[in-house]
Order: sequence, then structure tokens, then C-alpha cells
Amino acid sequence: MADDDEREIELTSLVERNDLTGIRLWLAEHQPYEIADELSRMDVHLALVPFRLLDKDRELEVFEELDPHHQHQILLGLRDSAFRALLEEMDPDDRARLIGEAPAKIATRALAGLSPAERKMTAALLGYPEGAVGRYMTPETVILHRDLTVGRALEVVRAKGADAETVYTLPVVDDGRRLAGTVQLSDLVVSDDSELIKDIVDVLVPRVRATEPAEDAARLMQQANLVALPVVDSEERFVGLLTFDDALELIEAADTEDIARQSGASPVSGHYVAAGVVRLARARSVWLLLLIVAATLTVNVMQVYEATLEQVTALALFVPMLTGTGGNVGSQSATAIVRALAVGEVRLRDLPKVAWKESRVGVLLGLMLASVALVVGTALVGPLIAAVVAVSVIAICTWAAVIGSTMPILARRVGVDPAVVSAPLVSTLVDATGLLIYFSIARLVLGI
Amino acid sequence: MADDDEREIELTSLVERNDLTGIRLWLAEHQPYEIADELSRMDVHLALVPFRLLDKDRELEVFEELDPHHQHQILLGLRDSAFRALLEEMDPDDRARLIGEAPAKIATRALAGLSPAERKMTAALLGYPEGAVGRYMTPETVILHRDLTVGRALEVVRAKGADAETVYTLPVVDDGRRLAGTVQLSDLVVSDDSELIKDIVDVLVPRVRATEPAEDAARLMQQANLVALPVVDSEERFVGLLTFDDALELIEAADTEDIARQSGASPVSGHYVAAGVVRLARARSVWLLLLIVAATLTVNVMQVYEATLEQVTALALFVPMLTGTGGNVGSQSATAIVRALAVGEVRLRDLPKVAWKESRVGVLLGLMLASVALVVGTALVGPLIAAVVAVSVIAICTWAAVIGSTMPILARRVGVDPAVVSAPLVSTLVDATGLLIYFSIARLVLGI
Repeated sequence: MADDDEREIELTSLVERNDLTGIRLWLAEHQPYEIADELSRMDVHLALVPFRLLDKDRELEVFEELDPHHQHQILLGLRDSAFRALLEEMDPDDRARLIGEAPAKIATRALAGLSPAERKMTAALLGYPEGAVGRYMTPETVILHRDLTVGRALEVVRAKGADAETVYTLPVVDDGRRLAGTVQLSDLVVSDDSELIKDIVDVLVPRVRATEPAEDAARLMQQANLVALPVVDSEERFVGLLTFDDALELIEAADTEDIARQSGASPVSGHYVAAGVVRLARARSVWLLLLIVAATLTVNVMQVYEATLEQVTALALFVPMLTGTGGNVGSQSATAIVRALAVGEVRLRDLPKVAWKESRVGVLLGLMLASVALVVGTALVGPLIAAVVAVSVIAICTWAAVIGSTMPILARRVGVDPAVVSAPLVSTLVDATGLLIYFSIARLVLGI
Repeated sequence: MADDDEREIELTSLVERNDLTGIRLWLAEHQPYEIADELSRMDVHLALVPFRLLDKDRELEVFEELDPHHQHQILLGLRDSAFRALLEEMDPDDRARLIGEAPAKIATRALAGLSPAERKMTAALLGYPEGAVGRYMTPETVILHRDLTVGRALEVVRAKGADAETVYTLPVVDDGRRLAGTVQLSDLVVSDDSELIKDIVDVLVPRVRATEPAEDAARLMQQANLVALPVVDSEERFVGLLTFDDALELIEAADTEDIARQSGASPVSGHYVAAGVVRLARARSVWLLLLIVAATLTVNVMQVYEATLEQVTALALFVPMLTGTGGNVGSQSATAIVRALAVGEVRLRDLPKVAWKESRVGVLLGLMLASVALVVGTALVGPLIAAVVAVSVIAICTWAAVIGSTMPILARRVGVDPAVVSAPLVSTLVDATGLLIYFSIARLVLGI
């Protein structure tokens, strides 16, 4: 932490003082990812100053570390020649993602400036749907034929390895370019030169279709401990490799997105510190609007029971406690299930199992929390209303756990991202229904 | 999904029918990670049946894929010879984590059964604090001296590579075993045999101390695109490598933990489907108890204003809507900042910047939501109370955004995990304070 802070103060203040010698020195002393991290925190007009001072090689490395939002901003600040040179040198998968997410005017200019070979490669990747593995894989690999010897294969790696993004996992194909499996470079290195690739190829290695979701592929790599995952087309032909660094990034991005959704916000691309107030507010506004409209239901429920409230004002005292507790229990269940779905622990057919389990969890939690409510209620308003509150707590907790746990599974079943079943959504639903439960119990017990 | 479901139905039913031939066939057709995934979903007494049918090599691979909770359960079901053989063969880092998290009786039995060499290696890793890189790194690497030639280095890799967990990143050391940097196996393969290691070593590669938090190291690997990260002791001597597969696992586990905390629950280790009702309830109960006790504050606030409520019952109608909205806005801010802290986008010194930004986001959201409240309120109870509600919405949203965003940063400043500033905690705090705001505005405007 301390190091980070010093680093930041330094570069920002150097840029603000326009101390070009100081900036050059700072840049020489830091790694591309550190430079990218600092640039992401600065306003773009400031970030362009150090960016332009980078030498060509590092410029590319730093640029590839930036997120798409910052990449677009930087590109807009570059002259045409620099713009073209940068894009031409990028890895095809990084470039495809940049262009795929860019505003139309940047995308057109970017594609037009590319050499025919690079343009073809980029267009192929852009042909895959957004979020698909095809957008994230690298087509630049060293492919081995299954009939090669290990010695010959190593020569191929030596000759072509420099142009590939990775040579640790080597796809092995048959005559029709169909994927037979993969060999690891480490296996080549420790094998005898005369051995045949087809005798050491791992044919059981997992593979994915280029059209499958990239997040699922990344989680598969984590489960299967793969440094690279081979990607095939619909006819089992090899088309590229998803590498571990993209997998790490995919998992972090997917988790960031799920976490934002879980709080009822759209994910904001780019660095928090660099995000504008209006952009942050917009990302959070949609759900808040929907939820406050949904919350008018609670006003209606309260209105229905206004007469009851006028008779027994004490009932009103416990409304925030009950809605709060119900919301908390429901959010916990929803959060647990959304995560379990994301990492593949819970599947669609687990719905009845999950509902039954969570209902019992809800009863247990309800019993525990009801005892607190009973003590507090008795002390403040007497045993009768306290009993009403306690019974309501049990009922609301059970109901909240069931609703919170089943809604994400139902969402996935109808093809919606389970993460939209956010904590606020569950709380709001449980608020209105919880009040109905509370007042019904109150009227029953108090006989009004 | 469909595939997963078929797979599961098959193995579970094979085990339940005790169809040993069928189970053997199923095991032969699946990868270790798939087998581990299925075992994780089953009760341990059932999971032991297929586990015992695995041949020795795959038994180890499957076992290493299980989470510690399941590993402990499986170990308890094994005979002593099988127990020892399994532990002896494990990777030292996986074994250290298993023992570190095991109940005392398993840990003692496990350490006692190891060969002296393996016991020494495990003890060294267990010497590092829980959660530190030292617990997750592998000490089994191929170390190169900086004075070697590339040709000689490749011979070393060939000779010792089979025993190492990874040979893709090769640590380079000087005479005192101090880390000079790393070379990539891919660089060795494409370099001339006569070149010297010291001329191609990457000296700028990031390195971490073995005592640093493993999660930070994993995120550094993601940022710097490293397949393995060298780990050093306090004297800069090389002690091990953190590999990408452990980094992927660390990031996923850290995110799972943060997500659970964010909903006010302790993380539950192991598979959701296999977790018992009592264990789930216990993980969620601590915060719920604290929060319902804190929520008695809302009862107190309501009681203070009971006379006001008796005079104007209509005020009570909007209580759930106001507490709900405040909770939602506060949770969104807290979630955004906890995540930004976790991935390193926000730092301690950003506190004033964040508070100022979030207060403006809160005002914007408040204005938007107040307009809805004004319309709904006017329709249901007339313009005067509607105005009170609308003004309260603006004040509560601003307050909630500031509280939600600053509390996680303050938590980290005092050394507490920011993720404990959960959505439920923020909601509960905002409930009580929001009610104070609401009733104060009401008494001011209505003159009561």
C-alpha cells in the first residue's frame, strides 16, 4: 500500500509540473503494468503526456494493459500514424476486443488502417459473438502435426515460436486440421527426440467451441489447471488457444460484473477513480428506479392496514426492523446461490434441493432472531405485540430464504443472468410480502 | 449444463445401485477435475466408493482437486497405508494447505506418516502464516545459476524437469541463492545454445516476499500476465514459485469470500450442495444477530416519534420505502468501493476524493428517486407529505452514498477487511439514521 501511494504521488505530480525528464526517469524504472495502472487513474489529457514519452515497444505493452475505455481515449489523442502503428502491432485477440467494444468512429478508423493480413485475422475474431471464447483466444500458435517426431517438433517451435503468443501448450492436429489433443512444451523438452508426437499427445484434454461463453471456458481452465485451453470450430478443427492470462482477466472481470449486479448496479467499465459522477449514477439508476416503483407496493400494503396502525401504533415501531431482517436473510440466500451458480456448484435441477435446504436454514435463523425480537419487544411494548413480532420474524425469514434462493435459479432457467436477482431486488420483494405476513399475523393474534 | 446434469445423474445413481463395473467405466471416461466435481456434490460415505476404485495415479490427481473440507472427510475414510501413500505423493504446497486447515487429529497423523524429506518441506511451508504466499508456492522448481549457458540450462531442465511442478518459469539465482530474475522456458528454446543465462534473464520481473498475502500476489500475476511469480525470503533468496493455477484458485476463492462477506455471511468452505443446513445457518447467523440488535435502534427512533406518528399516521406509510431506498443506495456505494479496494483501484488516500464523488452521485440519484416519490406520494396522501418524503429521499440518498463509500476505506485504514462493511450492515445503519432525517424534516415542514 505505502509503495503504491508513493508511486502515484510521484507520477501525477511529475505530470502536473510537466517535468519531462522526471517522467522519462519514472517510466524507465517501472514495469508496463505499473505504468498502465497509474495512467488508468489519471485524466486522459494528463495520461497522454507520459504515454507519448514511452518508447515504441513499451508503448504497446502499456497500451495492451489498459482497459478498453482508456484505450479508446488514448487512441483519440494520437496522430494517425501512431494510431495505425499501435493497432498493427497488437495481439489479434486484444485488438479484436478493443475494436469490438469501440465507438463506431474508432472501430472504422482502426480496421481501415490495418494491413490486409492483420485485418483478416481481426475480422475472423470479430465474427464471434461478444463474450464468446472466439473473441478472447489467440490464433497465433505453433501447431504440430501428430506424425512429427519430438525432435522435429522442437525445431518447429524454435523456428516459429517467436511469433506465437504462447508455446507452452502446443495443439496437435491431424490431416484435416482437426484437433487431436495437445502436448506441453515441458513434455517435449523431457522426451526423447525420436519419439512420435502421436504417442505423447494428451487426447483427453478439455476443448471448447469458439462460440461458447468465455467465462465458462476460463472457469474450466481453473478447474482443470490448464495454462492454455484449445478452441475448436463446429467441425472440431483447431482455431486458437485461450491463454491463462486472459482466463485470469475473464474471471476477475466476471466477478466484478456479478458483484456490481448483485448490488443492483450495472458494471462500470474502467477504473473507479477515473469514472465520472454521471456515469456512476447512470449505472446505478436503472435498478433504483425500478425498485422505488416496486416499493410503492409497500406503501399500498401499509395503507391497507392504516386502520390497524391507527388502533395499535406500536405495530409501526417494528416495521423497519422486520423489513430489514427479511431483506438481510433474503440477500444472503440470493448471494450464496448466485455465486454457487456462477462457479458451477449449483445446477438447474438442484432447484427443489436448494429450496428445501434454504427453507430449513430460514427457519433456524428465524428462531434465533425471533428470540431477540421477543426480548426487545417485551421490554419496549409488552409481551403480546412482542409475540406477534417474533412469530412474524420466523415466517418472514423462512419466506425470504426460499424466495432469495429460488429466484436466481428460476432466472437462469428462463435464460436471464442470475446475478440480476440482486440483494436490493430480493429486499424490496421481501419488504412488501413481509409486511403482509406481519399485519395478517397481528390481526389474527390481536383480534382486530 | 445439459451435459453436466447427465453426468451427475449417472454417477450418483451408479453409486446408489452399487454398480461397481459401471462406476469403473464412468471413472475411466472422465477427467480428474470432473470426477472431483462429482465427488464434491455427494455425501462422503457415498463419495468414498468411487474414490477407492480409482487407480493410484488418478486417485492423487482427483484428491488434489478436492477442497480441504472434502479432503479431510476422504482421509478419515481411508486405511492407514492408503492415507500415508496419498499424502506422501501430494505436491508440497497442496499438502501444506491441507494440513494447515485440517483438524488437529488429521494434521498430526498426516505429519507423522510422511518421509523425513517430505515432512521437512511441508514444515517449511507451514512455517508461513495462513493466507501468505509461502503456503501456496511450490518449492519444487528447476533453479538455474546465472553463469550457465542456454545449452547447459536446457540439459538441467531435461534432467530435473520431471520432478518440478512447473518448468515454464525458471528462477535464476546468483552464488548466494539470491534471485537475479527469471527466464522463460520459451526464451531458452528459441535462444542460441551458447548464450549465457545472465544475458537473457529478466531482472525486472516482479517478486514477492513469502510472508505477503497470497491474494495480492495472485492479483499481481494477473496484472503482470505472469505464468509463475518468484517468491523470496527476507534476504531476497529464492524460495519458491506461485503458479498460475494456484493464482486462479486464489482469485476465485477470494472473490467467493468477499461476495459472502458482502451479504453479511461468513464464507462456507466446500461445495454448496454438500454443505449442511446447520453449517449454512451458522455462517450467516453472526451478522444477522448483530444486525437485529442494531435494528432495535430503529425501534427506538420510531418510539421517539410515536406521538408524531399518532398525529399523522400517513407518515408511517412511507417508512419501508424510505429505509429500503436508503439501504439500496448505500449498498451500491459500499459494494463498488469494496470491490475497487480488492482489485487495487482505490487506495487509502483516495478517501476524500471518493467521499466527494459519492456524495454527488447520491444527490443525483436522490433527485431522480425523489421525483418518483413526489408523484406517488401526491397521488396517495397529498402534496404536503409527498414533499416531506421527496426531500427526505434526497437527504437519505446522499447520506447513504457517503456512509456506504467511506466505511470500507475506514475499515481498511484500521486494518479490518473492507468486505465486512456488508450491504446489510450499511442498510441497517442507514435505516436508523434515515428515519431520524425523515422525522426531523417532517416535524419541521408540518410544524409539529
